[in-house]
Amino acid sequence: MCQLLAMNANTPTDIIFSFAGFRKRGGLTDCHSDGFGIAFFEDNAVRLLQDTTACATSPFADIVNQCPIRSTNIVAHIRKATQGQVSLANTHPFCREMWGQYWIFAHNGNLKDFTPQTGQYFRPVGTTDSETAFCYLLEQLRQRFDSKPDHATLFAALTEICHNIRQYGLLNCVISNGDILFVHCGSLLHYIIRQAPFGVASLADDDISINFALDTTPQDKVAVIATLPLTHNERWQQFAIGEMAMFQNGAIIERQTPENPVYPDKEMGLNMARQAV
Amino acid sequence: MCQLLAMNANTPTDIIFSFAGFRKRGGLTDCHSDGFGIAFFEDNAVRLLQDTTACATSPFADIVNQCPIRSTNIVAHIRKATQGQVSLANTHPFCREMWGQYWIFAHNGNLKDFTPQTGQYFRPVGTTDSETAFCYLLEQLRQRFDSKPDHATLFAALTEICHNIRQYGLLNCVISNGDILFVHCGSLLHYIIRQAPFGVASLADDDISINFALDTTPQDKVAVIATLPLTHNERWQQFAIGEMAMFQNGAIIERQTPENPVYPDKEMGLNMARQAV
Repeated sequence: MCQLLAMNANTPTDIIFSFAGFRKRGGLTDCHSDGFGIAFFEDNAVRLLQDTTACATSPFADIVNQCPIRSTNIVAHIRKATQGQVSLANTHPFCREMWGQYWIFAHNGNLKDFTPQTGQYFRPVGTTDSETAFCYLLEQLRQRFDSKPDHATLFAALTEICHNIRQYGLLNCVISNGDILFVHCGSLLHYIIRQAPFGVASLADDDISINFALDTTPQDKVAVIATLPLTHNERWQQFAIGEMAMFQNGAIIERQTPENPVYPDKEMGLNMARQAV
Repeated sequence: MCQLLAMNANTPTDIIFSFAGFRKRGGLTDCHSDGFGIAFFEDNAVRLLQDTTACATSPFADIVNQCPIRSTNIVAHIRKATQGQVSLANTHPFCREMWGQYWIFAHNGNLKDFTPQTGQYFRPVGTTDSETAFCYLLEQLRQRFDSKPDHATLFAALTEICHNIRQYGLLNCVISNGDILFVHCGSLLHYIIRQAPFGVASLADDDISINFALDTTPQDKVAVIATLPLTHNERWQQFAIGEMAMFQNGAIIERQTPENPVYPDKEMGLNMARQAV
């Protein structure tokens, strides 16, 4: 079981506050200490910081604080290895180029006996079920479309492909091309959209608070997605099991909720994930 | 005009010493201050550090020294922008996955009117002639081979493709998949193979010396490739114009020298590169 953190915003925003709490779960307040990764889109390029040691203490995680990077799309992951040894090749997020854009993917869950045939366009380098799922997902998209389709078509295709993959196990995942950020919830995933009027937020994993009003404009809109809420004094929304959403400019632009949505509580969601391992 | 640095070794080796001199040329001892990048293969994975500011002073370049990374294949580049604005998407080295392996490419030179048709497998994200050449190179390989061919076949194909590209201008480039490291010299490129008996080396760009004998074994073999020699008391070899070489385990395993090799002196080589811009 791993944990996910992602951000989609309408203005380049740093993730220092959220990442300060998230990284603690990588070896201090929680046990996800088999490496971490964080990918920042900077315009159409990606800056990827990764390490195979615990995020809480990795010098590569310190860089997030030391060299503040403002981005509109960020994907981060702390790993507790289930499939594939602890190595850089098995560390999320994974990156590939498709249609002349970089695509970033991170996964929390566990897929059993998921062995799709060798891709024509995309093949895994490491040995995780997660990278296999990412390559399968891109392969399916690339086989269908020679160039990037419109958002509604892309959302429908991603939804269908995620449905295929989740037959093999648990799939909480985030994927972004630096413009949209797509989320699939398999068990436990929350989000919050921070917008005016901005207030004070306090981390759940550290004694740090921030007044967002001091560093924002009334137009700013920042969606943060996380396995578990990162703050204890804000109202996070929970995705239902099987729910899919597409964010752009800090807002949800496409969404598909199951007909009878189930929202597991935190313990139930965590247990589901553990049982899937 | 940019400068290249690469390393291919038979044992994981850090590049702190060589990079300390090389980075000075990115804004201090030379003018290549439009960004830098360095890619380290760690087993089959890649760690890529890049910035759009001068390498000599970038905090991302400090990481090379602060977090020593041992690798058998490293590719670095300092940029003086010729085509494409200063941006992360236009910063070398570039990375793609092919045949289930990551491939890294960096280029020094300038290609004119090089506009190959849109690739099926690989498309540039940025706007440089260099990334276009990289995508073309991989596209040609992928179209020919569904999986990685043997080294001799790969060398012959890379040689042919580089010959095609160099019709459009100057092509000094380095490409690696973490196992082999391929070099094409279009104007100015040097190399040295450090092996027992190891001695003392002194940087050309800084007042730093190192005694390699203190941190090596008699079996170690480390090839370093650079646009211009990085040390002033070692015997660097110069590649001829049009020469190609493939390194593995710190040694040249394939090589093709032109029938009538030309070795320009430093000034002539630099002028050739400038004229091509």
